[in-house]
Amino acid sequence: MAPTVVERRAVGADDVLRVGDRVGVGCMVNSCGRCANCRNGDEQYCLDGMVPTYGGTDRDGTVTQGGYSTHVVVDADFVLSVPEGIDLAAAAPLLCAGITTYSPLRRWGAGPGKKVAVVGLGGLGHMAVKIAHAMGAEVTVLSQSLKKQEDGLRLGADHYHATGDPDTFEQLAGRFDLIVNTVSARIDVDAYLGLLAVDGTLVNVGAPAEPLSLNVFSLIGARRSYAGSMIGGIAETQEMLDFCAEHRLGADIELISADQINEAYQRVLASDVRYRFVIDTATLG
Amino acid sequence: MAPTVVERRAVGADDVLRVGDRVGVGCMVNSCGRCANCRNGDEQYCLDGMVPTYGGTDRDGTVTQGGYSTHVVVDADFVLSVPEGIDLAAAAPLLCAGITTYSPLRRWGAGPGKKVAVVGLGGLGHMAVKIAHAMGAEVTVLSQSLKKQEDGLRLGADHYHATGDPDTFEQLAGRFDLIVNTVSARIDVDAYLGLLAVDGTLVNVGAPAEPLSLNVFSLIGARRSYAGSMIGGIAETQEMLDFCAEHRLGADIELISADQINEAYQRVLASDVRYRFVIDTATLG
Repeated sequence: MAPTVVERRAVGADDVLRVGDRVGVGCMVNSCGRCANCRNGDEQYCLDGMVPTYGGTDRDGTVTQGGYSTHVVVDADFVLSVPEGIDLAAAAPLLCAGITTYSPLRRWGAGPGKKVAVVGLGGLGHMAVKIAHAMGAEVTVLSQSLKKQEDGLRLGADHYHATGDPDTFEQLAGRFDLIVNTVSARIDVDAYLGLLAVDGTLVNVGAPAEPLSLNVFSLIGARRSYAGSMIGGIAETQEMLDFCAEHRLGADIELISADQINEAYQRVLASDVRYRFVIDTATLG
Repeated sequence: MAPTVVERRAVGADDVLRVGDRVGVGCMVNSCGRCANCRNGDEQYCLDGMVPTYGGTDRDGTVTQGGYSTHVVVDADFVLSVPEGIDLAAAAPLLCAGITTYSPLRRWGAGPGKKVAVVGLGGLGHMAVKIAHAMGAEVTVLSQSLKKQEDGLRLGADHYHATGDPDTFEQLAGRFDLIVNTVSARIDVDAYLGLLAVDGTLVNVGAPAEPLSLNVFSLIGARRSYAGSMIGGIAETQEMLDFCAEHRLGADIELISADQINEAYQRVLASDVRYRFVIDTATLG
């Protein structure tokens, strides 16, 4: 969610939020703040458990209610500044899909001279393409079919291949430095690892509910890695928002009002959204 | 194998080998020399296929016969110098077990302040312990039982735990920056990934013949990686030998003569060797 500040309660020496500021709240609203991971800026991996924005139990025992509301009370440390230059509605999905893809792209060195593949062109994938392109990488979309090819190229991809075509895996063998897999369904891990060059990394940002099968030779044969990544820390989320503002990136969204939520939900189930619905909370209640 | 040079044939401008030099030959004797991986010093991942020392087909069509011989003809680019200060017999296993463990320890940053675990204390594992300790890491051995604990601590390990004890996995959860798995048998990958801290890597240097099962949440929950690594490049193998000489490291071996080979083979099958047999080729034929 990306609202504005309407009231400040706690005031600390480093409290820089002011009433009227353009701000955002992402997937978490609290963490212990003291463990090694929190101190390292990796609040999402808080050893005591971070508090998710939706349906989590906060440290005072209250249940978090998410952002489908006109007002929300959040610890200032978990509030991000949305820079001028990004529309508030287009910024909202950045706080989930944006940071979820930005973080692994940064960590595994997407940039000039690097070949990056993005598996799946949905809400996460479309941000991965925009961000990897803005970082200067050569970007390839690997999607089930060529249905969204025009969109993919418009978003910044240099190449687009259908994974439904078995030739794709032969043609692109050993090609990529980094593959960001945004698909939560089961994949043939060995087939995707085969697309990596020496020292390449396949990173999952979603996870299927069931275990996957992996042949270790797929890793050993070219010193490859299979990794996972979950959103990003608070400082890194701010860095992502600043990066997006600098590169004029927002999510591609459909802004809906409260009375369209049920319809939008059905369209999400049918994968009929390019690429995120955003609810205008001014139309709530 | 770690013999001395008895004859030079090809002489190039950068040929620095002389008759009488102490030299070694590792797991490979040739590669294409032209592909991206060879040019990068990763001959073991030659895109055209490196030529293994044993039972491979060399680029001229001949079958490689390995090192169980009094003489061997090898391309000078694949001959390593064994520095003074390492016994030739103790150096021989370094060309396999040494580089196989040195390479991932270097690549994934084993050193002061890093917690490294070594799974399995056999030929590979005992070198991983020595090298990781010499690099300055805090080293833990994870072995099936505590049978070799005394050996492990003598070789340089700071801690020793039995993986047969289920408490081990609870007690050491989230502890390590790097785990080098030297065991080729099937392991519970999720259990070992659970021992890694945020950004930690589990690297296999051997591989079971059958696929493993992996729950992607084990990776995503702490931005962990599962990787594989195979021996090392020629320049890195020389670097490893120089490192071992500097730190006075050799393999722990039993030197045997040709007439003990059959008996030694039976003992290898029974895991009764600490930690490598080396055949004195002067006793051959």
